[in-house]
Amino acid sequence: MGNKRVIVVGGVAGGATCAARLRRLDENAEIVVFDKGPHVSFANCGLPYFVGGAIHEENKLLLASPELFRRRFNIAVRTWHEVVAIDRRSRAVKVKDLQTGTESEEHYDALVLSPGAAPIRPAWPGIDLPGIFTLRNVPDSIEIRRWIETRSPKTAVVVGGGFIGLEMAENLHHRGIAVTIVELASQVMPPLDAEMSEYARLRLESNRINLELNEGVVGFEQNADGGLTVLTQSGAKIHADLVVLSIGVRPETKLASEAGLEIGDRGGIRVDDQMRTSDPNILAIGDAVEVRNWVTGQWELIPLAGPANRQGRVAADVICGRDTKFRGVQGTAVCGFFGLTIALTGATEKSLRRAGVEDFEKIYLHPGHHVSYYPGAKPIHLKLLFRRSDGLVLGAQAVGEEGVERRIDVIAQAIQMKATVFDLEEAELCYAPQYGSAKDPVNFAGMIAANVIRGDVELAPWSELPTTPALIIDVRGPHEYRGGHIDGAVHIPLRELRGRLGEFDKSREIWVSCQIGQRSYYAYRLLSQRGFKVRSLSGGYDSYRVLYPEGL
Amino acid sequence: MGNKRVIVVGGVAGGATCAARLRRLDENAEIVVFDKGPHVSFANCGLPYFVGGAIHEENKLLLASPELFRRRFNIAVRTWHEVVAIDRRSRAVKVKDLQTGTESEEHYDALVLSPGAAPIRPAWPGIDLPGIFTLRNVPDSIEIRRWIETRSPKTAVVVGGGFIGLEMAENLHHRGIAVTIVELASQVMPPLDAEMSEYARLRLESNRINLELNEGVVGFEQNADGGLTVLTQSGAKIHADLVVLSIGVRPETKLASEAGLEIGDRGGIRVDDQMRTSDPNILAIGDAVEVRNWVTGQWELIPLAGPANRQGRVAADVICGRDTKFRGVQGTAVCGFFGLTIALTGATEKSLRRAGVEDFEKIYLHPGHHVSYYPGAKPIHLKLLFRRSDGLVLGAQAVGEEGVERRIDVIAQAIQMKATVFDLEEAELCYAPQYGSAKDPVNFAGMIAANVIRGDVELAPWSELPTTPALIIDVRGPHEYRGGHIDGAVHIPLRELRGRLGEFDKSREIWVSCQIGQRSYYAYRLLSQRGFKVRSLSGGYDSYRVLYPEGL
Repeated sequence: MGNKRVIVVGGVAGGATCAARLRRLDENAEIVVFDKGPHVSFANCGLPYFVGGAIHEENKLLLASPELFRRRFNIAVRTWHEVVAIDRRSRAVKVKDLQTGTESEEHYDALVLSPGAAPIRPAWPGIDLPGIFTLRNVPDSIEIRRWIETRSPKTAVVVGGGFIGLEMAENLHHRGIAVTIVELASQVMPPLDAEMSEYARLRLESNRINLELNEGVVGFEQNADGGLTVLTQSGAKIHADLVVLSIGVRPETKLASEAGLEIGDRGGIRVDDQMRTSDPNILAIGDAVEVRNWVTGQWELIPLAGPANRQGRVAADVICGRDTKFRGVQGTAVCGFFGLTIALTGATEKSLRRAGVEDFEKIYLHPGHHVSYYPGAKPIHLKLLFRRSDGLVLGAQAVGEEGVERRIDVIAQAIQMKATVFDLEEAELCYAPQYGSAKDPVNFAGMIAANVIRGDVELAPWSELPTTPALIIDVRGPHEYRGGHIDGAVHIPLRELRGRLGEFDKSREIWVSCQIGQRSYYAYRLLSQRGFKVRSLSGGYDSYRVLYPEGL
Repeated sequence: MGNKRVIVVGGVAGGATCAARLRRLDENAEIVVFDKGPHVSFANCGLPYFVGGAIHEENKLLLASPELFRRRFNIAVRTWHEVVAIDRRSRAVKVKDLQTGTESEEHYDALVLSPGAAPIRPAWPGIDLPGIFTLRNVPDSIEIRRWIETRSPKTAVVVGGGFIGLEMAENLHHRGIAVTIVELASQVMPPLDAEMSEYARLRLESNRINLELNEGVVGFEQNADGGLTVLTQSGAKIHADLVVLSIGVRPETKLASEAGLEIGDRGGIRVDDQMRTSDPNILAIGDAVEVRNWVTGQWELIPLAGPANRQGRVAADVICGRDTKFRGVQGTAVCGFFGLTIALTGATEKSLRRAGVEDFEKIYLHPGHHVSYYPGAKPIHLKLLFRRSDGLVLGAQAVGEEGVERRIDVIAQAIQMKATVFDLEEAELCYAPQYGSAKDPVNFAGMIAANVIRGDVELAPWSELPTTPALIIDVRGPHEYRGGHIDGAVHIPLRELRGRLGEFDKSREIWVSCQIGQRSYYAYRLLSQRGFKVRSLSGGYDSYRVLYPEGL
C-alpha cells in the first residue's frame, strides 16, 4: 500500500464515512475531500427539526468540521470547492474554488463520487418567487428559519406528502403555521401501500393539517400582501406565506455522466457490488447511485443515510484492496409526526406488483405494543408480506404510537437473514408487561402467516369484498358490532357460533370477520372443520376501516 | 383424528395456550384443563405491578375465565382441582376437588403437564411468620396488597435481587415503603454479567433502595411492635414490616417424578424437542421443564412466558399428529425499574464459561439511543459476545433508558438466525433523528466485533488492567480526562497523537483508551500502522467505571 491519493467528491454521510475509514485502513494515503457547500458531515436528516426548532442551534447540525478532519484524521477537506470535470485517462479532476473562481487540477489514484441527490424543483411559473424553498443543506434550513422568524408566516404549503414533506408539515405546524400538503398521488407517503398510509392521513387531519390529495401544483403567483398563491391542477388557489417543495430528489449525475460513466435506467450512477462505477478507478456511493433492492433484486433509487454510510465503508475497503461487498438495500425507513410512527422494511405490495412478483400473500394485524392488562397499551397496525410458496419474509409496514420501529427492526433483521414466517413464529423477544407480550406482535405476524402457508386458514381477498356472493359473518360481541361493521355483514358472536351451525347453507361460502382477525380465525377453524367452505378477513374491522374508509 | 381426550394439568401461560390451540386443530377432541388454583390464564408477569398499583383492578389480571374457555372453545376448565397422581398404564389421572375433598379418576389419550414452578421458600426459622410473602399467583398478590393497605408498612425487605425482586422493590418503593434488597450473590440480577449489573446497582441506590449484597438471610423474628426482624449471615438485623421472598423458583416435578417420568440434571422434567416426556403419551411444557439453551446447547431451567407459550403450541401440534419442533430457548429477557431498562439475549460471559466455551470475545460500547444532535439522546450500554473463530453472535446485554429492548430484540432475532457479527454490521434498521442513527447501535456492535475478527483492532484484556506493564494512554480531550480517568493513564489527546509518536518506546506495549472506545480505535489504527504494539480498551472509560467501580 503506497502513498495513494484518494479524492472524495462530497463530504456528507457516505463521503465523510468513506474518508474517515480510508484513513483508518491506510495511515499513509493522501485523502482529499471536496465539497461545493460550506460544510461537510452535516446532519441532513435533522434539517426539518432545525426548521421546527426541536434542534435549536445550528452548530448541532455540524457533526465534524474540516478542522477535526485535519487534526484527527489527517484528511484535507476543501469546502466551497466544486469538482467540475473528471479526466479519466489522466486520472485527474478539475476543481473550481467557488469563492475565488480559480480552477485547478488534482490527480487521483482512486476517486469516490458522493455527490448526493438534489431536491426536484420543477420549472413551474413563479418557482423562483421569494418564499419558495427546498431543503437540502444547512444554509437552506437557515433561510427557511429566517423567513419564519422575520416574516411570521401564517400559512404554508408543503408540496409533496412523502417522508420529508410530512416531517416539514409537522415542524411548520409546531411553529404555529397552518399547513396544507399538496400531493399528486392519491395518498401521503407514496412508498407505503395505500391502506397503510390511511393512518397517516387520519393523524394529519386530526392535527388540522389540510391535505390536498390527487392534486398537483402548476405554478405560483405573488400576492399584493407579500404572500403567495399556489395554483393547482384542479384550478384551486391556495394562499401560502411560505412554500416548501419536497417532491423528491434526483441523483446528482452530471459529473459522472459527462465523464462517460454508466448511468442506470432509474437515473442513478450504476455501480457493482463493490461500489465501482464502469471505470474501476472511480467508485460512487450514496444517494447518487442505484442500488439493488435486497428483496426484489431490482435496481432502485433509495436515498437513505444508513446504506450511504455502509457504501462509504465498502468503497474505502475496496480502495484499500479488501474484498468487501455491499449487500443491497432493503428500504428500511421510519417517519414520525404528531405522535405517530410509521416504519417499513423490505417490499411493499406495490413494489412487489411493480417487480412482477405474484407469489406473495399479505396479512394484517393490530396487536397492542404491550400486554393489554398493563396501562397504556397502544395498537400497532402491521402488514406483513411473505412468499406464498415457502414463507420467505418479503416486507412489513407498521403504524402506531409505541414500539413500531422496534418490530420493524426485528423484521428488517429477519429479512436480511432470509428468514421465513416460521422463524418469526419462533422469535424470542423481550417481554415484560410494560415492554411487550409473551406473544410479541412479531410472533403474531409469524403465526398468522404460517397458518396461511400451512393451510390452517384461508384468507378472503379484501379486494373482492364489494362483489363477493359469500355470506359475511361478523363474530364480534354485540357492542362492537353496533359500533360499526362491514356493510352487509351478519352478526353472530363467536360464542354462539357452535350452536347455530344449522342456520348456514353449506353450498354458500362464508367469510368471517372480527375486530382484528383473531376471533375470525377461531371461527374459521370451527367452521372449516364442520365442513363449511370458509375464509377469514385478515385484520378484521380494523383493516376494513382503512381499506374501505367510506364503506363498500 | 377421533374423539381423543386430552387432559391439561395447569391452566396458566403454556397450559392455556396448549388447550386453546388443541381446539383450533381438533374441533372434536375432548379437552379438560385442571388447575389447583382459583384461576386459569392469569397474568403472572403482571403481579408485581398489581402489588404496586400500576395495575389497579384484580380483574385486569384475569385474561380468560373458565366460562370463556367453555363458550368460546368448548374446553372444560376445572379450577380448584389438583391432579395428584398419574396412572400411566391405564392412562388416567387421579384428580382431587380441593373444595369438596372428593377424588375422581379421569382417562386421557394425551396428557399435558404444565404445573409451572413454585417460589423457593427455605425452611428458615420464622419463615411462616405473618408478613412474609412469596408471589406466584393472584391470591398471593391480593394478600400482599391487603397487607400494605391495612398495615401501612414503612419498611420492606425483598430477599433476592433477581428480575422479580427488582420489580417488587420498585413497586413497594412506589407505595412509599423503604426497601432493602438482600442478595446472596455479589451483584443484583445474577443472570447478567457482573459489570452490566453495576448499572442496576447504581440506579437502585440513586433511588434510595438499600442493597445488601453478599448477604444471606438466616431467619426471621417477630418484633413486639408487630414488625419483623430479618436475621442475616453477617449478623445484621434488618427491620421489616413486610418481607417478600423472590429467590427463584423450583419446577413442580412431584407429579411427574412420582409417575416415574425422567427428571433432568437441573431438576426439571426432561422432554424431547417435541415436548414429550419419557412417556410418549405425556407431554410437559413451561417452567416445569428443562430446555436446551439455543446458544450453548446445555439443558437449563429458564422460566419465561414466551417460550412457555411456544411450548404449548408445539405440544398441541404434536398431540394432533404434526411434526412441529421446539427450537430451544435463548433466554431473551427484559426488566425495567426506576426508568432503567435492562435486557439480554443469548449467552452471557458467565454462561459461556459455565458451559466451558473458550472460543469467544466480548466488546463494550455506549452509543446513544438516537443521534446526539437531536435532543434527549440517552446512552445504551451494550456488551456483545461473539465466537472468536467465525463471528457467530452468541449473546448481548444492554442497559439504558431508551431503545434498549429494541436493540436486544434485533440481536435476539439475529441469534435465532445464526447471524454473525458481519450481519450486524450490515443490519438495515429504522433511522430518523428521533429514532436512531444512520449507524445504529446494532451496526456499531457489529462493526467493532468485525474489526476484532478481521484483525483491524486488538483488544486489551480488561481483566489484566491492574497488573499490565503496558503504557496506558488516554486519548480523550483535557476536560474529559480531568473529569476522571483510568488510574495511571497518561493523557495524550487523539489530535496530538500523530505529532508525538517519538515520545513512545516501541518495545513497550501501549493500551489506548478513550470515553467509549471509538477514539481509542482510531488511535489503535494510527499506532499499529506506525509499528507500535498496541491494544485498545473496549468501551473506554465508560466501561472502566463499571468494571472497576472503586478504581484499580
